Amino acid sequence: MDNLTVALDAMSGDFGPRVVVPAALQALNCHPELHLILVGEPTEIIPLLPKKYQRLTIVESTSVIANDMKPSIAIRHSQGSSMRIALELVKQHRALACVSAGNTGALMGLSKLLLHSIEGIERPALVAVLPALNNRNTVVLDLGANAECNSDMLVQFALMGVILARSTLNIDNPRVALLNIGEEDIKGLDRIRAAASILKSDKNINFIGYLEGNELLTGKTDVLVCDGFVGNVTLKTVEGLIKIFLSSTQLMTKRNSLIMKLAGHWLQKKMTKNFGHLDPNHYNGACLLGLQRIVIKSHGSANQKSFLAAIEQAILAIKNNIPERIATSLSSALAKSENN
Amino acid sequence: MDNLTVALDAMSGDFGPRVVVPAALQALNCHPELHLILVGEPTEIIPLLPKKYQRLTIVESTSVIANDMKPSIAIRHSQGSSMRIALELVKQHRALACVSAGNTGALMGLSKLLLHSIEGIERPALVAVLPALNNRNTVVLDLGANAECNSDMLVQFALMGVILARSTLNIDNPRVALLNIGEEDIKGLDRIRAAASILKSDKNINFIGYLEGNELLTGKTDVLVCDGFVGNVTLKTVEGLIKIFLSSTQLMTKRNSLIMKLAGHWLQKKMTKNFGHLDPNHYNGACLLGLQRIVIKSHGSANQKSFLAAIEQAILAIKNNIPERIATSLSSALAKSENN
Repeated sequence: MDNLTVALDAMSGDFGPRVVVPAALQALNCHPELHLILVGEPTEIIPLLPKKYQRLTIVESTSVIANDMKPSIAIRHSQGSSMRIALELVKQHRALACVSAGNTGALMGLSKLLLHSIEGIERPALVAVLPALNNRNTVVLDLGANAECNSDMLVQFALMGVILARSTLNIDNPRVALLNIGEEDIKGLDRIRAAASILKSDKNINFIGYLEGNELLTGKTDVLVCDGFVGNVTLKTVEGLIKIFLSSTQLMTKRNSLIMKLAGHWLQKKMTKNFGHLDPNHYNGACLLGLQRIVIKSHGSANQKSFLAAIEQAILAIKNNIPERIATSLSSALAKSENN
Repeated sequence: MDNLTVALDAMSGDFGPRVVVPAALQALNCHPELHLILVGEPTEIIPLLPKKYQRLTIVESTSVIANDMKPSIAIRHSQGSSMRIALELVKQHRALACVSAGNTGALMGLSKLLLHSIEGIERPALVAVLPALNNRNTVVLDLGANAECNSDMLVQFALMGVILARSTLNIDNPRVALLNIGEEDIKGLDRIRAAASILKSDKNINFIGYLEGNELLTGKTDVLVCDGFVGNVTLKTVEGLIKIFLSSTQLMTKRNSLIMKLAGHWLQKKMTKNFGHLDPNHYNGACLLGLQRIVIKSHGSANQKSFLAAIEQAILAIKNNIPERIATSLSSALAKSENN
């Protein structure tokens, strides 16, 4: 398939088609080579479309996986759901990637079931590239796919993070750190210390040790690894704080004094320039890394702009051929270790 | 003992006496009823003191517990160390509280060994009152004393948090939440779900459910409970971000244009007013809650201002009689549950 085709789970997320359909139309406008398949209830999708449209197909689904459903139950009853059909389209090579704002656990389970993990990867991880100070970027994973992780999983996340940093950030020898509660060797949890000792002994990994939470956005590392619970809480803490900051600058522009207003607007522009890239709307879309195909998880609360960002993530992952790169790197690493 | 006497571990932390001594002098200036005992190497302390001073005693120590020492080893070799002697002064009722910027694990272990936990509390927790939006405050624990916690510990943290919120924030029926990676019942780790079900069934606890990281500073709860690993990473993430924000406003005041400079200064004032209270310098000092006596842990990197804040925390805890309040509440709760 030569077309750049992405399947969108149009029914999941807090707003379903009301957000997904306009975001899809906007994405088609921006990318003339893009084809989209909207998976959902046609009677809910069609009224949101213009009379004429192109490069857009609707595939009917008959149910939606609820966000508060236990993943194991959701997966058992997933037949006919928008999420499952979108993933099946990827499995059938009718689409190159799937984007869903639905239940994270169900998306993770169904993706593993239908699209399979890359050999050498126990569990896929949610990854995002977070902007850091001095125009640097940091690949952070896991952001919530695996609430608990053992040391092997953390090491696999590190390997995948390195490949992502190389291929999308163009960093030759990415620095890798583990998120911990102290920088000294003895700090933290057993599984983190065990992962550190494996990473330290791997000559192909530029392991720089532990980093604490306050270094998250300082660009001191290119890849930051943690378990999904900690990653999710940390990311959401950052998002919450950014929101508070940006909204406080907005408040200032609503003052009565003209000077205040001007200063407020200037400040808002500055703040948005400096920190706006940390606004969830801008970097929405975490890749479920470690699968044989491309799956992008959008925030459940995504609005049109941020769902568009998730579609852009899918396009980027397709263009960078991420799953294939990871598979190739891992198989050559496995071959090396077998030869030794 | 009627005196308000606090023992300070003068040798620990990144800067030792160079920070602790001036902070001590400042504290004595602010609190005419305060007495301080500086535990440390006299030859390092005395040169930092003015010719005349009062309400300040020096107690000699012969060693310092290093920050990168494994807690179990540190405790075994703690005889004569500044941290241990400061705690012994509290044990001997020569001081009402101890403040140390030293090794967290060692401080936790030695405190338990010398000062004992309150009955009904398995492990003490590091707690701080974080400022939230709308002039609210949130009691957050554990901030790093216990990297791993079981559900019973989380429940005990909640109970202690409630007592702290009642006594220091004057909230009658504090709302309690568990930090989690989703708000739905099924989300998160087994131990968190188990703690939730215990808290839900306790009629004396106003349990409002799970909160995610983005709600950390929004004031949606009065008490927020998490394990020490997550609490530490989250708190440090907040601190790191606040630092980035505040320093960026400082940069603006250094511009060439006068209007920029003025706007920058105005903005800086605003930002400090709105967010300065989140600056680690202002709320430094986490109480090791659940001990029979008062122990305050200061940041290792504390400067004079922030070490002063930690001393203030000790004074506040003494005045509020925190350990006794917790012991009384717990023993009445235990008596009730035995009668049932």
